[in-house]
Amino acid sequence: MSDVKKVVLAYSGGLDTSVILKWLQDSYQCEVVTFTADIGQGEELEPAREKAGKFGVKEIFIDDLREEFVRDFVFPMFRANTVYEGEYLLGTSIARPLIAKRLIEIANLTGADAISHGATGKGNDQVRFELGAYALKPDIKIIAPWREWDLLSREKLLAYAEQHAIPVEMKHKAGGSPYSMDANLLHISYEGRALENPADEPEEDMWRWTVSPEQAPDAAEYVDLEFSHGDIVGINGQAMSAATVLAELNRLGGKHGIGRQDLVENRYVGMKSRGCYETPGGTIMLKAHRAIESITLDREVAHLKDDLMPRYASLIYNGYWWSPERTMLQTMIDASQASVNGWVRVKLYKGNVIVVGRDSETDSLFDSTIATFEDDAGAYNQADAGGFIKLNALRLRIAAKLKNRSSN
Amino acid sequence: MSDVKKVVLAYSGGLDTSVILKWLQDSYQCEVVTFTADIGQGEELEPAREKAGKFGVKEIFIDDLREEFVRDFVFPMFRANTVYEGEYLLGTSIARPLIAKRLIEIANLTGADAISHGATGKGNDQVRFELGAYALKPDIKIIAPWREWDLLSREKLLAYAEQHAIPVEMKHKAGGSPYSMDANLLHISYEGRALENPADEPEEDMWRWTVSPEQAPDAAEYVDLEFSHGDIVGINGQAMSAATVLAELNRLGGKHGIGRQDLVENRYVGMKSRGCYETPGGTIMLKAHRAIESITLDREVAHLKDDLMPRYASLIYNGYWWSPERTMLQTMIDASQASVNGWVRVKLYKGNVIVVGRDSETDSLFDSTIATFEDDAGAYNQADAGGFIKLNALRLRIAAKLKNRSSN
Amino acid sequence: MSDVKKVVLAYSGGLDTSVILKWLQDSYQCEVVTFTADIGQGEELEPAREKAGKFGVKEIFIDDLREEFVRDFVFPMFRANTVYEGEYLLGTSIARPLIAKRLIEIANLTGADAISHGATGKGNDQVRFELGAYALKPDIKIIAPWREWDLLSREKLLAYAEQHAIPVEMKHKAGGSPYSMDANLLHISYEGRALENPADEPEEDMWRWTVSPEQAPDAAEYVDLEFSHGDIVGINGQAMSAATVLAELNRLGGKHGIGRQDLVENRYVGMKSRGCYETPGGTIMLKAHRAIESITLDREVAHLKDDLMPRYASLIYNGYWWSPERTMLQTMIDASQASVNGWVRVKLYKGNVIVVGRDSETDSLFDSTIATFEDDAGAYNQADAGGFIKLNALRLRIAAKLKNRSSN
Amino acid sequence: MSDVKKVVLAYSGGLDTSVILKWLQDSYQCEVVTFTADIGQGEELEPAREKAGKFGVKEIFIDDLREEFVRDFVFPMFRANTVYEGEYLLGTSIARPLIAKRLIEIANLTGADAISHGATGKGNDQVRFELGAYALKPDIKIIAPWREWDLLSREKLLAYAEQHAIPVEMKHKAGGSPYSMDANLLHISYEGRALENPADEPEEDMWRWTVSPEQAPDAAEYVDLEFSHGDIVGINGQAMSAATVLAELNRLGGKHGIGRQDLVENRYVGMKSRGCYETPGGTIMLKAHRAIESITLDREVAHLKDDLMPRYASLIYNGYWWSPERTMLQTMIDASQASVNGWVRVKLYKGNVIVVGRDSETDSLFDSTIATFEDDAGAYNQADAGGFIKLNALRLRIAAKLKNRSSN
Repeated sequence: MSDVKKVVLAYSGGLDTSVILKWLQDSYQCEVVTFTADIGQGEELEPAREKAGKFGVKEIFIDDLREEFVRDFVFPMFRANTVYEGEYLLGTSIARPLIAKRLIEIANLTGADAISHGATGKGNDQVRFELGAYALKPDIKIIAPWREWDLLSREKLLAYAEQHAIPVEMKHKAGGSPYSMDANLLHISYEGRALENPADEPEEDMWRWTVSPEQAPDAAEYVDLEFSHGDIVGINGQAMSAATVLAELNRLGGKHGIGRQDLVENRYVGMKSRGCYETPGGTIMLKAHRAIESITLDREVAHLKDDLMPRYASLIYNGYWWSPERTMLQTMIDASQASVNGWVRVKLYKGNVIVVGRDSETDSLFDSTIATFEDDAGAYNQADAGGFIKLNALRLRIAAKLKNRSSN
Repeated sequence: MSDVKKVVLAYSGGLDTSVILKWLQDSYQCEVVTFTADIGQGEELEPAREKAGKFGVKEIFIDDLREEFVRDFVFPMFRANTVYEGEYLLGTSIARPLIAKRLIEIANLTGADAISHGATGKGNDQVRFELGAYALKPDIKIIAPWREWDLLSREKLLAYAEQHAIPVEMKHKAGGSPYSMDANLLHISYEGRALENPADEPEEDMWRWTVSPEQAPDAAEYVDLEFSHGDIVGINGQAMSAATVLAELNRLGGKHGIGRQDLVENRYVGMKSRGCYETPGGTIMLKAHRAIESITLDREVAHLKDDLMPRYASLIYNGYWWSPERTMLQTMIDASQASVNGWVRVKLYKGNVIVVGRDSETDSLFDSTIATFEDDAGAYNQADAGGFIKLNALRLRIAAKLKNRSSN
Repeated sequence: MSDVKKVVLAYSGGLDTSVILKWLQDSYQCEVVTFTADIGQGEELEPAREKAGKFGVKEIFIDDLREEFVRDFVFPMFRANTVYEGEYLLGTSIARPLIAKRLIEIANLTGADAISHGATGKGNDQVRFELGAYALKPDIKIIAPWREWDLLSREKLLAYAEQHAIPVEMKHKAGGSPYSMDANLLHISYEGRALENPADEPEEDMWRWTVSPEQAPDAAEYVDLEFSHGDIVGINGQAMSAATVLAELNRLGGKHGIGRQDLVENRYVGMKSRGCYETPGGTIMLKAHRAIESITLDREVAHLKDDLMPRYASLIYNGYWWSPERTMLQTMIDASQASVNGWVRVKLYKGNVIVVGRDSETDSLFDSTIATFEDDAGAYNQADAGGFIKLNALRLRIAAKLKNRSSN
Repeated sequence: MSDVKKVVLAYSGGLDTSVILKWLQDSYQCEVVTFTADIGQGEELEPAREKAGKFGVKEIFIDDLREEFVRDFVFPMFRANTVYEGEYLLGTSIARPLIAKRLIEIANLTGADAISHGATGKGNDQVRFELGAYALKPDIKIIAPWREWDLLSREKLLAYAEQHAIPVEMKHKAGGSPYSMDANLLHISYEGRALENPADEPEEDMWRWTVSPEQAPDAAEYVDLEFSHGDIVGINGQAMSAATVLAELNRLGGKHGIGRQDLVENRYVGMKSRGCYETPGGTIMLKAHRAIESITLDREVAHLKDDLMPRYASLIYNGYWWSPERTMLQTMIDASQASVNGWVRVKLYKGNVIVVGRDSETDSLFDSTIATFEDDAGAYNQADAGGFIKLNALRLRIAAKLKNRSSN
């Protein structure tokens, strides 16, 4: 074990990170600082304080990061209509860089020389935590217990807990959850165990944030969303903070059975993995954001964004939020949103998000006097299209003539 | 008027193309050949034959192109998960190159020196017809009456029809449809008039192919789709031809309220335009194709496809199906589909297409022995991740160190 | 002829634009304002004033735009290492948006309702002028005489000049230059006539700005270039303005036979065209800029720039400088240049620009303690590479195993 | 040490791989098979056979892979105009996948369960060898001694050699070459030691394959190159095999001082590295290939290739030749070359490769009757350009009008 004096641990208060806490104290003989964040996962944080105290932890950080999370991470990501591999809304990925940032801030505050996290050696989260940490503090030591210790099975972990008097909840003794879960204001995810065969449908009782479309209300609900610079700043006429917007959209989406996903995705570490996600508010945001962009963004700006979106999504998925290339793309994406102002009306009904109206008093590029099928009073000269087509066809015609000559 | 001897007209039998037929005969003093195709628009074709005959047309072509349409145009496009501007499934765009091809084939067969179509000078269809025609027969003359004549209002058109004894149906006299519509096996579209304000929700009675989600059955329906080389070749265990697959998926999707879209899109000719579409079968295909690819495609192959998809979609939207760059991309896309074999199970319910299972006996790259959260018997060495992260972080760390030095 | 009261003409004082001046006065019965710019083409401007006066022009604008040209157009373009189709440094393309901008400014100043230019209907320049003008003043009328009049042969043009007492220089009467030329501080171009067969080598006496490599000095010359934020701000230790930098690099490059190009390029209007160019200073700048970026830019930032460069180059080539998508890309490119500071030493010798040294005191990311082949004192752990390779290989191995199974 | 029975070693016969040979025998107690390839590095191979014999090696493979190297690796790469980071012609990168392939073939032939190579843990070559090997034989064991042993300094290596009676040439005792070198038919490279400071110019006596431009002949030499499907198949009228073409171009380029490069590049493992390269033949090929494409490729095909080239270059640089995404890109690139037939004339003079002519009897898309500045007899209607510009400007004008309204 390398020479570590003080380590900041991302601590949830659950079994795994409690075992890690103890293991760090024993293996590294170092002081442990715990950090627990509220990023909207919907769990109480105070028990984490109490538990950490029982392990003799003296520096305990418990932070409410919900506004920062949505304002500085979720919203910027949605400005790009970001989707990984055509489906995944990156709910887990986008929370990690914030945790990494806060871990480093606390290491700086407390004079710690290392950080630690509970992510396994097979997943993307270790990469996201560690790339972020290294980018922000290049000489930080990082302890990833799952890559170091020999507690690789659940039985060994439970035995270690028992041996070290770490309290184990009944559910863990009974075999634990059939899923590995993670949650924040953007989503809740399910992986592993019962989901390992992608040929099988998930059990209905797995889902926690949304009712099934079948159980959703029989009456549709219309919701008005106000956009400013690409972000939602109000719902149904009421201005709201970023985190409040997302919480309210989660409530609405959850109620109407919106935002469930069941996917097989490609991890950065090289394997395919099956994941199920509930992203009710994010699903509404994505649809609405595309709708407001459809009337306020120039065509080529929109296409440039679309062309680069998969790359931007991969950067976030792979853990490169704190990289210069992500910052560079963000600069461009943010610049494009200056005109993305207006409102979108969506209809929510049993799993569906249906855009039923969009307008922008200040920035609409939709000009019905030009697009009209009726007489346009000269706004558009149809004859121009002839020349437009002729020149766009020129290279095709030259090639076709050559081909005809060749075949004669 | 230039010197045209014989022109092949894309003839639907409706009012507009009947007026065009007459106008061509009068204005160009040329012979007209009519061509009417069944591409799944769901209208009888024989009345077109009769009407053309009444205008004295001697060469009348009526072709059933449904299989060719789905096999050679729709399916290749779906291999790329093609979506224009994040939403539009290109139902109109993909039919035009086939019509262009057939117009030119008939021009060659009949010795015609020109073709003609009924697309207006404001839309994309004129571009798609004409780029295709020029690419296939570079010296063809193209007559686009809407860009030439002075019948630009509905009143003038009706007056011309009356004057030349062209039969006008009651509905036209009563003001005509509140929408401009187009249909083929992939979709039906609505544009214009009642849809010109994108702030307003379309009337429910506009939609023709799908019931509303509210009216869809209360019971979900599970459907199994068999893929071969990226194309659906069987439904619920029954092998089917391409056009039959799409027709059956349209039936299923329509029944369950699937595939309505209400969009503002950017036309190639430079304006924004509001369009509503029903693509029931296509919506199911897209979702299912992504699902089968998720287990059978290599990650980087999938990402390369995703990166190029928007460009490929624009090529089709803009009318460049018959261009060398589309062909070049298609070569690559088709090559990627060799391994896209297996089945996908979808659940259809009130507007939702939910993937609930996917597998491939021959080509699955999903390896649960590696992804498992349980003991993997050494299939994956978690320690490898440390080196992986360290080297991926190296450039970020070097930059961070430089920055730290600079700020000291 | 549409109703035009006053038109601003981009006026060189040469034969073509003098004929246009007269033709505008006669055909449109409108007032003409002339605008002549010094963008480094190396011709005296005062004769243009005198000639315009003789035509009765009352508002004559003669502007020295050299600094603005290099600072706001050439330098921003070089920050992206911009090259069109692998070769062309865009010397003509980059000057047009400045002319368009100034034409519109003068139209606004003088209350003109139209602008006019002397570009032909076959080239890119008409597009560049007009797209710029429309983007800056959407209702401007644009008169492109070459697309309107019937003076399409040189004989007719000369006859018109004679008829209207427009002075014609001896060289024109004798048949004119065997090339169509254009020049500004970035380059001089040759097209047409004697160059129309791309199988033939240009005559040596065509080239005007550079000696041939054969005629260049036998002794090499070393030059030090100082970069700040991606732009050259000093040469051989002497700080210089943007235009002075480019003029001095032109002098050095011209002396050493640097920057000749002989190309076939693809025009936006659809045809291939042969062009010869001399870009002595630009050729040095491009090479040096890549060299300073090689030590100061992050790898992924550099690659992102490289991936987008061809698209950015096409935007400029096609005339979209004043488009929102060019602005959006520029925002990103400029942001990347914050760290591009330092110096580059080049050796100039008979057509060669050889980089022989580069360094940055403040921003070098080159770390010899890591790259060294010697002992690196632990700066890099070679064992990390094992894990790095293993995880990058994982997907390839899974696929290979599947393939092996299939073939058994 | 893991359980290895027989290992195939990429063996040059030099000091490093001789030490590795002995170290493998001692450390792994396994049988060693040696493989030495002629890929044009210009060294005799028979000494390697003799040396391997002295170590008791029973299975010795010595293969002439020059034709395969150029035909199946170099030429396909040049079809894409491949350049890494704007400068590097990938001379080292492109040879590695062939070595990997042959190592695996020999492992299969000899029943070996492992391969080994002499690449260090800091470079790209280890990645290229090992990704290739894993992709071709997923369960192969790979021994990379530089990542395992403790002979990390030159002193320790020499001591080991002395101790085990491995012959050490005088030059090594004297300190060894001041550069780490690598050569094959495409290039020779220099890295390390004397080159570690990128601010310093390399010594003239470092360069081995080319004379300096100063020492090159005072008379230029014209060379005609015949292309078929994008590959050079003849020089000055004489048909040649792939390897002969490259050897002859190396001779010509070397004679005329062509193809030296001095770069800082970004390694896949995360560091910047300075390298000098001589690629005389490749430099000529690249220039000539772009020239023949300029008249035979469609514009959009060429642009699509340009857009993807940096990605393709990175794949090769990073060692992904044997990946499905490289294969997929290659399929597209190769398809584009069907029309790349014709000839190019280049002038070689003191470091310069100047294209002075290009033509294609069968595939030229250059049409002088259209591009001409003279009367084109109606081949191109200049009026078409008006409509072309108007429609391309439409979105810019709509946006400008909105902006004008907003500022009022």
